[in-house]
Amino acid sequence: MDDTDDPLLLTPGPATISARVKQAMLHDYASGDPRVIEAIGFARRYLLELCNGAGSHTVVPILGSGTSGVEATIGTFLPEGGRLLIHTNGIYGDRIIEIARHMRANHTSFRTAPYTPPTAEQFEAALAADPAITHVMVVHCETSTGILNPIEAIAEVCRRRGKGLLVDAVASFGAFALDAKKLAYDAVVCSANKGLQAPPGLAFVIAKRAALEESKGNARSLTMDLWDQHQHMERTGMFRFTPPTHLLLAMAEALREHQEEGGIAARQARYRRSWKRLVDGMRQMGFRTLLADEVASPIVATFHDPPDENYAFQKLYDGMLRRGFVIFPGRLAAANTFRIACIGVVTEAEIGRALDALAETLAEMGVTRMGRAA
Amino acid sequence: MDDTDDPLLLTPGPATISARVKQAMLHDYASGDPRVIEAIGFARRYLLELCNGAGSHTVVPILGSGTSGVEATIGTFLPEGGRLLIHTNGIYGDRIIEIARHMRANHTSFRTAPYTPPTAEQFEAALAADPAITHVMVVHCETSTGILNPIEAIAEVCRRRGKGLLVDAVASFGAFALDAKKLAYDAVVCSANKGLQAPPGLAFVIAKRAALEESKGNARSLTMDLWDQHQHMERTGMFRFTPPTHLLLAMAEALREHQEEGGIAARQARYRRSWKRLVDGMRQMGFRTLLADEVASPIVATFHDPPDENYAFQKLYDGMLRRGFVIFPGRLAAANTFRIACIGVVTEAEIGRALDALAETLAEMGVTRMGRAA
Repeated sequence: MDDTDDPLLLTPGPATISARVKQAMLHDYASGDPRVIEAIGFARRYLLELCNGAGSHTVVPILGSGTSGVEATIGTFLPEGGRLLIHTNGIYGDRIIEIARHMRANHTSFRTAPYTPPTAEQFEAALAADPAITHVMVVHCETSTGILNPIEAIAEVCRRRGKGLLVDAVASFGAFALDAKKLAYDAVVCSANKGLQAPPGLAFVIAKRAALEESKGNARSLTMDLWDQHQHMERTGMFRFTPPTHLLLAMAEALREHQEEGGIAARQARYRRSWKRLVDGMRQMGFRTLLADEVASPIVATFHDPPDENYAFQKLYDGMLRRGFVIFPGRLAAANTFRIACIGVVTEAEIGRALDALAETLAEMGVTRMGRAA
Repeated sequence: MDDTDDPLLLTPGPATISARVKQAMLHDYASGDPRVIEAIGFARRYLLELCNGAGSHTVVPILGSGTSGVEATIGTFLPEGGRLLIHTNGIYGDRIIEIARHMRANHTSFRTAPYTPPTAEQFEAALAADPAITHVMVVHCETSTGILNPIEAIAEVCRRRGKGLLVDAVASFGAFALDAKKLAYDAVVCSANKGLQAPPGLAFVIAKRAALEESKGNARSLTMDLWDQHQHMERTGMFRFTPPTHLLLAMAEALREHQEEGGIAARQARYRRSWKRLVDGMRQMGFRTLLADEVASPIVATFHDPPDENYAFQKLYDGMLRRGFVIFPGRLAAANTFRIACIGVVTEAEIGRALDALAETLAEMGVTRMGRAA
């Protein structure tokens, strides 16, 4: 039962979560147990508070990954006759396109450069080119590179043109404010894991009440119909089908922890301190980041592979794992890179130890040239 | 962290599971951690063994409730141009119809009497009446009443008429043998909870390889596309999207427990002993079961409400809860009944204590007439 020997996950998820949150799963309760209903109720109230959504928005949890949350959102909010514009500048944007294609959803997409944020003008142009578009979907933090997309500017374009905005904030929610009143989105998709630090397996959709009310009958799925899940939950406080009671208890505990830490500002500050320590330390060793700091999200950093013939990611991975840390390879969108994330319970001190482990591993590998690739 | 004060769940799910299974969730591992991959691999191999599916069938786990598993199965196996016949004699059959309607799946349905099993002739007649039908879906154990549908006879009709058989075995799998070779089904949907005694939140589909291979491109969902999940899992051993790592670890532990208990035969024998003790004890008190014993599944028993003016289900529920037991109300399909289940870690001795608690509660309520309702 002791998990202190488990490696620390320096990945964009699953994240390492606290023992307290995991221990909340050591109970078996019935679907309608007041403790389960209160876990759901507290989570819905607290997330609404985090996004300043009182009155205008509502929170709908579902059993599923963040990807399930994205699929449920498209299925619920895109009406018959609607058309979805999907922006992508990485793997997670591409995944939204894959979801829409699988669903046979009426959609179009546009791609912008992976290492610089898209501009409002690019969204204006894409919308002007296709007046049939009714909704826009974007990824907030694209963890395949680490880029943070400019959600305020995108929301402003959508509002001006009267398009419904759907945001994939799976990687960012909990560490970033996504103000429901200011951004006026139709839906934001969140994961219970990642920045909220609960076990993976639950997704949340923060939905504009007016948009959700209009969505009745849109979904071609019963289990992922957010309208239906919402009306049932408002009426009974419960899930429609057997709920993942253990995950729900852990999720509520994780949100109490988030609250006690000081909410979004405090959590982001902690991640930011870890991230700065990481990037500074890596640069001191000679590594180069893929992104300029101004466009990077302080939850994951992507580094160019060292241009040293002794370097191989698998060796670095294995050496780090032996020292108690899990790091991540780069994604296709950013070849010849690797990633280190700092979400979960990770602290600045642990990042310091990870840097030491990295230096040791590289020395062991005989890697001496870290930067300035050919 | 001590869960001994939690009430014992005498419900058809979520079931009370062992401390050992819950404690398996106290670790945070990455998606690709060998322990996570081995948990998935072991579960797939063990379930295939349980259903005698080697060679002919394969196992596809997904994140979701049993209901999600049913939806994924319809979406994956019913091709464009296919037509599904859904049998119902209770709430869970009705739910399959609701799922198919929501999905706009081409389907028809037929209803048989709730308290007696359907016959092969009824299936023959339904199929003869509509030759466009390509697939048949039935619930194995309909826990809204407790009836066990005659799956062998139904499978025989499907095989003779060349229809694909899809089975909702969410409530029964783990306690009943559903032989893949003998029944030759296209798909059986199972829950990790219920008879397999893992936490709720994971579903499994046992799929006929030939049928799954033909299903490419059918699903109008990415996250619930069993074909896609299967090909990815065969290739990598992993889930396609962030997996519920904690649930996967618990599931593997629950299956090791199932194996150690002695597999399906031993588990069913334990449930059956508990069920017999329950039904005998209740009859001694004067209660009447809704179903004849020959058609009832030994995992849940449905009792007629006592015809005593002092009886109210809520009072019985509250009194039982104070004594450490959760029981279930009846469903619409069986009005004026209540249900007591014996799945999960429940033993015959605990059923004995539950019977004592029930007698005490009824005495406290002043209920003296248990049976022979007007």
